[in-house]
Amino acid sequence: MITVLRIGHRPQRDKRITTHVALVARAFGADKIVISEEDQKIKETITSVVESWGGDFSIEFQRWKSFLSNFSGTIVHLTMYGIPFEEKINEIREISGDICVIVGAEKVPPEIYQRATYNLAIGNQPHSEVSSLALFLDRYYKGNEFNRQFSKAKLEIKPSEKGKIVKGNNKK
Amino acid sequence: MITVLRIGHRPQRDKRITTHVALVARAFGADKIVISEEDQKIKETITSVVESWGGDFSIEFQRWKSFLSNFSGTIVHLTMYGIPFEEKINEIREISGDICVIVGAEKVPPEIYQRATYNLAIGNQPHSEVSSLALFLDRYYKGNEFNRQFSKAKLEIKPSEKGKIVKGNNKK
Repeated sequence: MITVLRIGHRPQRDKRITTHVALVARAFGADKIVISEEDQKIKETITSVVESWGGDFSIEFQRWKSFLSNFSGTIVHLTMYGIPFEEKINEIREISGDICVIVGAEKVPPEIYQRATYNLAIGNQPHSEVSSLALFLDRYYKGNEFNRQFSKAKLEIKPSEKGKIVKGNNKK
Repeated sequence: MITVLRIGHRPQRDKRITTHVALVARAFGADKIVISEEDQKIKETITSVVESWGGDFSIEFQRWKSFLSNFSGTIVHLTMYGIPFEEKINEIREISGDICVIVGAEKVPPEIYQRATYNLAIGNQPHSEVSSLALFLDRYYKGNEFNRQFSKAKLEIKPSEKGKIVKGNNKK
């Protein structure tokens, strides 16, 4: 099981970025997101996406210290200061047990760097926690995340060269 | 040359997402971003990142219709409704001439779907223009974007297992 732990979310400033982090977590194959700071608006958005587009992705709020104190698996912290993720991704893919992928907002407490099993950089240039999470999960799943089926989807896209084709889906 | 064209930016709502789109464009190897709606705050942020972290990435504002009417290369529009990007990425990599990668905010005018040479989906699930752009450029450069050197960088990260090591760089 892969849980994404989002820390440092500031509801005023980060609502859309954190929403995108959660959507990437779901679309790229994580099972759950835990957000350290409560924001019901994000929960509504993600719950609605899951209802329409399917799958079992879940969202909850819990302080990161509390979450990590109950977590006994492997902790992967994505940070531009870490070591290149390509060096560790094969090793991480072989790990049995749960994985927690931490993505921070601007300031990440030093304790996270210490607690993490791996501090991994998706390149050492500034970009985004949204793209960092996407690249990590993409490499972890070797690109197969795009073939994933989402159970109980009410909506499904039929890929199209020039338009938008969305099929309502009555299959349960 | 790869230009990212960001359309539908709403300064109040999209400032941080568009900033992340621009940072991904730079970090993942595009040359320029054109934003259809003016937002000087984003320009300041990106200019400051380029000054510190190097490279020749540029940012400008231009209406998308005006930009596209002067653009004669290949237009790649990233959209969840498109065809799987994996089917076309090898073909696109072989194209000579300029490429414009369009990433929209929520509503994209139908004209974009018509004008695009390719409407490509990075998976057919909702996620983010930030992750879509990252995945497209990652596959386009076959992962080599992380080995890119940024000229005239004042700051450089020394990858670290547990901390943050940033080196000031006096090389010109």
